[in-house]
Amino acid sequence: MTNTYPFLMIPGPTPLPDAVREVMSRPAVGHRSPEFKQIMKRVFPNLQRIFQTKHPVILYTASATGAIEAALSNTLNAGETLLVLSCGVFSSRWADMAKSLGINVQELKVEQGQVNTVEVLETALNADTEKTIKAVIFVHSETSTGALNDVQGLTNAIRRHGALSIVDTVTGLTASPFKMDEWGIDLAISGSQKGFMMQPGLSFLAVGERALARHQNEVKYPAFYFNFTRNLKAQAEDTTAYTPATHLIMALDVSLQMMLDEGIDAMNARHLLLRNMVRAGVRALGLNTLVEDDVNASPAVTAVLPPTGIEAPAIRKVLKDRFGITVADGQASLKGKIFRIGHLGFVGERDVYMVLACLEQALLELGYSVELGAGVKAAQAVAVSKTALTV
Amino acid sequence: MTNTYPFLMIPGPTPLPDAVREVMSRPAVGHRSPEFKQIMKRVFPNLQRIFQTKHPVILYTASATGAIEAALSNTLNAGETLLVLSCGVFSSRWADMAKSLGINVQELKVEQGQVNTVEVLETALNADTEKTIKAVIFVHSETSTGALNDVQGLTNAIRRHGALSIVDTVTGLTASPFKMDEWGIDLAISGSQKGFMMQPGLSFLAVGERALARHQNEVKYPAFYFNFTRNLKAQAEDTTAYTPATHLIMALDVSLQMMLDEGIDAMNARHLLLRNMVRAGVRALGLNTLVEDDVNASPAVTAVLPPTGIEAPAIRKVLKDRFGITVADGQASLKGKIFRIGHLGFVGERDVYMVLACLEQALLELGYSVELGAGVKAAQAVAVSKTALTV
Repeated sequence: MTNTYPFLMIPGPTPLPDAVREVMSRPAVGHRSPEFKQIMKRVFPNLQRIFQTKHPVILYTASATGAIEAALSNTLNAGETLLVLSCGVFSSRWADMAKSLGINVQELKVEQGQVNTVEVLETALNADTEKTIKAVIFVHSETSTGALNDVQGLTNAIRRHGALSIVDTVTGLTASPFKMDEWGIDLAISGSQKGFMMQPGLSFLAVGERALARHQNEVKYPAFYFNFTRNLKAQAEDTTAYTPATHLIMALDVSLQMMLDEGIDAMNARHLLLRNMVRAGVRALGLNTLVEDDVNASPAVTAVLPPTGIEAPAIRKVLKDRFGITVADGQASLKGKIFRIGHLGFVGERDVYMVLACLEQALLELGYSVELGAGVKAAQAVAVSKTALTV
Repeated sequence: MTNTYPFLMIPGPTPLPDAVREVMSRPAVGHRSPEFKQIMKRVFPNLQRIFQTKHPVILYTASATGAIEAALSNTLNAGETLLVLSCGVFSSRWADMAKSLGINVQELKVEQGQVNTVEVLETALNADTEKTIKAVIFVHSETSTGALNDVQGLTNAIRRHGALSIVDTVTGLTASPFKMDEWGIDLAISGSQKGFMMQPGLSFLAVGERALARHQNEVKYPAFYFNFTRNLKAQAEDTTAYTPATHLIMALDVSLQMMLDEGIDAMNARHLLLRNMVRAGVRALGLNTLVEDDVNASPAVTAVLPPTGIEAPAIRKVLKDRFGITVADGQASLKGKIFRIGHLGFVGERDVYMVLACLEQALLELGYSVELGAGVKAAQAVAVSKTALTV
């Protein structure tokens, strides 16, 4: 029997380590108990280590979309202006979100697969001589395309203008370097089912001083569930403002320890290696990546264009039906046009070989002329030489 | 060795059935996969069955506080008026919440342990000849005191006035009869770690037609993560608007089936029996309940006053240290003054005997003169006769 047990190679949810799975089946725990406080006492500082910040990281029981809304609703009033840098589905979602909160939206859009450039941002910020732009939001790694923005460069430009920087690093954090304090980021958001290699249901929002000051002094109707003050007050006492998803937090406690054991630099290097292996592998099969330039490619997910004459959904179907491997579809205008290989979280070299070998076989089955083993071999060459790490 | 493994008898989180625990340790699942849609196809209609409604029930990855905020932010604008019936910590929290959203709050308060009466509500509503009150919020079962409001009577009065009724049935649902459609309730909220006998992290919001119409036609800036339209649109396609807590939903799928197998009437009757057993048991030991009148007592939780000369925290400490049983402290002004025995969710007669026997021993150890076995015996008499069920 072939192993067709479901295996996810999508950009989240990601595969789960056994230790992270096991704690989920524990008995009920009181969320105000001394036992649970001991867990929180580890989780909060460990989250700060991952975000590389001395500022508090709020833990929400909600998806990252909720945490992004928290960032907006706690720092902006209806009628104020947010600049949104869009480069795909998720960054565009934040524009819709801001509008639904009554926030004025100014949007700088690039084509899907492209990144937002510092030059274009600077032109927009320089034109804002009245300083009406109160905050700028952008993604680190655009999950829908696999494009990687230059967080440090964009943040520097925002800093010079004076607006708050809000970084959606949902699939960026852990995969790519992210230095909240060193880079002067004001608000940063991630989610549990991504680089944290655990189940979905939790999200994390690091809150810098300037963001907190704006929340405290300028914002008229901050949210309640997502409210900074209420959440931070509880977290300072090693608890949460409202009943949290206790079992997900127990899983987070385990995964954070695994992440810190590996080390942030090592995690970043591993994801970069996996990215380069996947890119070398699919190119060796004659396929193109949506993000052409390697420098702009996310270490979390790679969007691949199918060869002429073969539909992306057909490739996904063979991978799923014959091998149990799920790779992601495109989203919005890219739906059915690309497939996305996730290499984020609890993923190693062997998983890349697996998906590339199955992809080769799927392509052959669909009538595409491919040399079996060529993709795997190219990925192995990257892994052995590690030269591609300098890209 | 005495079994001191932690056992929760608090009003949520509640003990967990093995089947509900087991699914939590499953591998990662794609939240947009056909396999997961099959789960959602069962979960959504089963939630409607529990709320006894034909209207949609929105499933949020968030605590019930989040779902209450959803009810307010989707149906009320800043500057509009909400009438809050307060009878304890939780109902008072909703007043704070509304204020933080810019909603005008009118509050009718009773002492902790009392219920909100239809008469007082009617007087307030009759005085509102201009119909400035757009919605009224109240709790079904006040978790902090164990008081049970007359949902049907209060809803009828609100209906006559024309405002929306918002019912916090977080610890009411499943423990006490709750008929969303038959009673004409507009919005009803519950949470996963309560009568649903599962882990915390999910909440449920049933949305009636009048509430939906107000959301669609009158509300200027509804939330995004909690937005009715966005969530309902996704749910109509057997999915969720944003990445949900997949594993908690798998647990919910199991617990909903268990609940429906037991039957709603049988569940209600079981909780009523447990309530009457606990009340008879503690009274047989000479202790008083905070809610004096049985008719106003919640079938989910019973707040007990310690005997003169013994502190409530001392009783809780013996139960925890010697028997591993956690009963809840009082909250706010009742902190340290009462202890609360939860008998909600996956709880049966044998659990009541266990906690009463341990309570007797704890009282004796603390120097209170008690006849060992008297509380258990009184509870057994209730269980055997079942006469108390007519209360």
